[in-house]
Amino acid sequence: MPQITFAPLGNSVRVEPGTPLLDAAKRAGVALAAECGGKGTCGGCLVLIESGKAAGDFADFLPGEAAGEGYALACRATAGDGDLVVRLGAETGAETGTKAGQFASGLHRQVLPAAELSPLVAILPLLVDAPKPMDGLGDLERLTRALANRTGAASVQCPLEILQTLPRALRQTDHPLACAVHRRGDCLDIVSLDPPPRPLGLAVDIGTTSVAVELIDLNSGAVLAHDAGYNDQTARGADVISRINYAGRPGGLAALRELVLATVNRLLAACLERIEAEPGAVLAASLSGNAAMTHLALGVDPEFIRLAPYTPAALAPAMMSAKETGLAIHPRAPVLFAPAVGSYLGGDVVSGLLLTPLAENAPEPRLFIDIGTNGEAVLGGEDYLFGCACSAGPAFEGGGLTRGMRAQAGAIEAVRIDPGTGEIGLSVIGGGKPLGVCGSGAIGAAAGLFRAGLLDAGGRLGGHADSARIVRDGRKSRFVLARPDESADGRELALTEADIENIVRAKAAIYSGCQVLLDQAGLAFADLAEIIVAGGFGHYLDVEDAIAIGLLPDLPRDRFRFIGNASLAGSSLTLLSEKHRRARAALAGRLTYLDLSLEASFMDAYTAALFLPHTERERFPSAK
Amino acid sequence: MPQITFAPLGNSVRVEPGTPLLDAAKRAGVALAAECGGKGTCGGCLVLIESGKAAGDFADFLPGEAAGEGYALACRATAGDGDLVVRLGAETGAETGTKAGQFASGLHRQVLPAAELSPLVAILPLLVDAPKPMDGLGDLERLTRALANRTGAASVQCPLEILQTLPRALRQTDHPLACAVHRRGDCLDIVSLDPPPRPLGLAVDIGTTSVAVELIDLNSGAVLAHDAGYNDQTARGADVISRINYAGRPGGLAALRELVLATVNRLLAACLERIEAEPGAVLAASLSGNAAMTHLALGVDPEFIRLAPYTPAALAPAMMSAKETGLAIHPRAPVLFAPAVGSYLGGDVVSGLLLTPLAENAPEPRLFIDIGTNGEAVLGGEDYLFGCACSAGPAFEGGGLTRGMRAQAGAIEAVRIDPGTGEIGLSVIGGGKPLGVCGSGAIGAAAGLFRAGLLDAGGRLGGHADSARIVRDGRKSRFVLARPDESADGRELALTEADIENIVRAKAAIYSGCQVLLDQAGLAFADLAEIIVAGGFGHYLDVEDAIAIGLLPDLPRDRFRFIGNASLAGSSLTLLSEKHRRARAALAGRLTYLDLSLEASFMDAYTAALFLPHTERERFPSAK
Repeated sequence: MPQITFAPLGNSVRVEPGTPLLDAAKRAGVALAAECGGKGTCGGCLVLIESGKAAGDFADFLPGEAAGEGYALACRATAGDGDLVVRLGAETGAETGTKAGQFASGLHRQVLPAAELSPLVAILPLLVDAPKPMDGLGDLERLTRALANRTGAASVQCPLEILQTLPRALRQTDHPLACAVHRRGDCLDIVSLDPPPRPLGLAVDIGTTSVAVELIDLNSGAVLAHDAGYNDQTARGADVISRINYAGRPGGLAALRELVLATVNRLLAACLERIEAEPGAVLAASLSGNAAMTHLALGVDPEFIRLAPYTPAALAPAMMSAKETGLAIHPRAPVLFAPAVGSYLGGDVVSGLLLTPLAENAPEPRLFIDIGTNGEAVLGGEDYLFGCACSAGPAFEGGGLTRGMRAQAGAIEAVRIDPGTGEIGLSVIGGGKPLGVCGSGAIGAAAGLFRAGLLDAGGRLGGHADSARIVRDGRKSRFVLARPDESADGRELALTEADIENIVRAKAAIYSGCQVLLDQAGLAFADLAEIIVAGGFGHYLDVEDAIAIGLLPDLPRDRFRFIGNASLAGSSLTLLSEKHRRARAALAGRLTYLDLSLEASFMDAYTAALFLPHTERERFPSAK
Repeated sequence: MPQITFAPLGNSVRVEPGTPLLDAAKRAGVALAAECGGKGTCGGCLVLIESGKAAGDFADFLPGEAAGEGYALACRATAGDGDLVVRLGAETGAETGTKAGQFASGLHRQVLPAAELSPLVAILPLLVDAPKPMDGLGDLERLTRALANRTGAASVQCPLEILQTLPRALRQTDHPLACAVHRRGDCLDIVSLDPPPRPLGLAVDIGTTSVAVELIDLNSGAVLAHDAGYNDQTARGADVISRINYAGRPGGLAALRELVLATVNRLLAACLERIEAEPGAVLAASLSGNAAMTHLALGVDPEFIRLAPYTPAALAPAMMSAKETGLAIHPRAPVLFAPAVGSYLGGDVVSGLLLTPLAENAPEPRLFIDIGTNGEAVLGGEDYLFGCACSAGPAFEGGGLTRGMRAQAGAIEAVRIDPGTGEIGLSVIGGGKPLGVCGSGAIGAAAGLFRAGLLDAGGRLGGHADSARIVRDGRKSRFVLARPDESADGRELALTEADIENIVRAKAAIYSGCQVLLDQAGLAFADLAEIIVAGGFGHYLDVEDAIAIGLLPDLPRDRFRFIGNASLAGSSLTLLSEKHRRARAALAGRLTYLDLSLEASFMDAYTAALFLPHTERERFPSAK
């Protein structure tokens, strides 16, 4: 049987020829994003075949030259007769801004099959009757009648700016007239009579630490460009509470609003430049974020989110125009906001659920975990759906770590530590010397140190083994991942005990939150049919490492599924599909919020989880 | 029987004691505005008892001191035992800006009984539930629920600017919260959470020559202030066609838009100052104008109104915000536009019809004539309603006359010429020496000259009689109404033959338009149960004078009713009442436009009417 090795993690597995590489990855303990369920449409499982030759029909699902350059979709490529080395992750994903990331942008990943599209703004080619004498109709009335006949809408709203262009548009345009419209129930709003040949939509995930955007072709549903970066607000506080406090200062709210708008507009501008499009070509936007981020982006005071009884100004802000929101797109573009369930269970989670069977009341119990600065978990089954917030802090996004950074070029994304020799091996995004460590690198380092005996259950470096890379400085210790001569900037790159404490607190918050959620339903982790993990780790997560530190429960590895930035993907789905817009609104209504701070058992569960992997070792039988 | 004399016209009549003065006026050939139908609420028939003592309960319908100062409402005051001299018109009306005009403003004329009010923007006192833990509702959702419960609205729109103020408004305001809302079908738009104690509405009539505005208390329906003036656009062309041509020049459209907005905003500012209110207190507006005026006010190119097939950009522009329109009122105030029937039968006429039985399909045939620069006539009965435009030119608004002016202080509003001596008597608005002549003065002068034999049927001065006031200057003659020492500005004030020609053309256009309209229905003037005349003459018109020159047909005088500026009154009604908004939309749909330029008979009828009073003298048996 051929051996399939996944770089840079090094996990390998032997499989029968013909086995899809996606299944091989799963059996090797590697979770790959596969939003489309293996149909070859989403592009989430793009990999690079570094050595050997893959079989299967994957070439048909890639643009012209890509297969020849060694790219494959893991869901469509299968193991052949010989061994394969398959490179995963950021180097082949769109997250990085690297050459491979550019390629992935060129993939035109489909969010939805074109046949299922009902975008927030649709371009209708319209035949409008010519003006006739004494027909009792003005230009507006003829346009309105044509739109009503075409769509069945009961009322049509034409803003003044469009009315001002209407007489010439109706007389100069060769028919049919392209009419960009936004439908709200029985009402149709005219957005433009002069839409670009390739109308675009903007999908956004506004995270507390990171912001991600996608530009989508509204006609085809294809993702044309993607970018992500830190939220500029992070300089004004690492977490939601410190941002809310900052907003209370004079001018603070306006400053935070400007910072997040600057972030989104900068990422958007980079995407537009890459595909050579103008801001005015973006005719619709869909934004997902937690309640505090949504408030700050809208310039709405989030103070009462922080104060009992924790009532936000709006769970579901109304659709509004881009001009009102300050997004640098077409001023009349409608902007849709994901509905929150409560102050601490936000629209980002509700959007993310769209990617999971929880949106469809699947009968087996499933857990959805969104790992971010505000970790959230949702437990769902046939007739229940409830969720909680488990504030993890920004460690898994590279925030709050001495040398933390986003999963982009220069970031250590995986760490191997030889338990015998203590020798380390680093995988750096984009190759070359490292500049910092991202979330998956930090998890890999902690897991590696723990496995090698260099980190004890209490999070102290040293322990029973020792290593030349552990440096003691008074009572504080650090583990040197790269000495000054090994790093990109000539500075030592270390993981400190304080960094490890942040990682441990983050994983404890998430694990214990999930545990209490299951307790409430009278379930144990083992009862779960599936655990679906979302978050901004890039496109892969080493499940073994995550279990080794106690972030994820010790379950059979094939019960885990990793879906990447689900909040962003949910933004895209709702940008493109009325079905998903309705489904998301229904999800927000069905989902019940469980306030962990009111659960007596939570503090005990959290404290017990502040060890590696856990105080109760029996919870992690496979940990060495 | 006591004799009632009406100044300044001098008409008098003997009536039984107890006869309402309004009836006495009608029998004396004087049409007084009485929109409310004699209920004592509209104030349109305000008069000043100059000598004698009136009976009746009129004092109850006037503010405190007014009855003591000699004011009365002609509909509620009756003839007593002795003779009366009753002063009519501009000196007691609101048009003038004089002391009496101010008084009339202080009358708080009711547009509608308060019980029938359903204003475009209503102030709802609202009890909003306090925030509760875990109730699954944000501030917006609690407000929306309270509004939906209160109004039955299916959806509530809260603009971002209001959402930004919502958290504090809900927590700081003593309940109930005053919520200013605008309803469109099942949808409710929140206009303000901080409405003024006296919320105002703005009613506007945008005429080609004149613009009139009213400020109305939305809570009570009372008119608080009124003003009118020339449309600043008149400097860019006297009629609709020249305005449309001007709009076609580079920058012309924008210039015309600015001019009419400046006019409305200036009149509005004067009204606001008078009642000591701020622009932000005006929460709704209702505008009526013909199609061209509406286009120009909105900055929409009116070019295609002028070109076959005469299709305007919009017959019924959508409701829009004051901010979009450029009105200097609350930026979120909704602005309603009167729907037009066609390019030349505008929303001003449709608004005006609301004041007449034609709006209610009354069975007897009735004619509605709106005398303005664009004269319009509508003929209606039980199952038909059709109308035409008869372009009169601005003469009846004082425009296009050598010394023409609006009906305001200094204008000659009535002229008496002694047929024996040729001596003239002038009535000047506000008293003192005259500055110019307004529409009613011009009609009075022409009628007086014709009666005295100083003007022949062809419009030539001199004729068989002569007068020292007729000055010949080569082939042109003029009639001197005031010599330099008799006029306010020391310049001669004369009516020229060219002025008379303008008056004759204007009256011929209106009379012949009405005639062709009746012909189409197989009716004659004598078949009409009522002729309702609207227009900007001030508050009265001497029916005898109007018949003498052939402007109005020679029918029994009690078939005429004069209702003043009906377009403005219709704007006010639709500002205040959903019933009238619906009725007006229905009227626009029912009304059929008859294009006189397509009627072969029109040119003959017009030509025949270019004589005083008419070529067919048998049409005017009572003319001397």
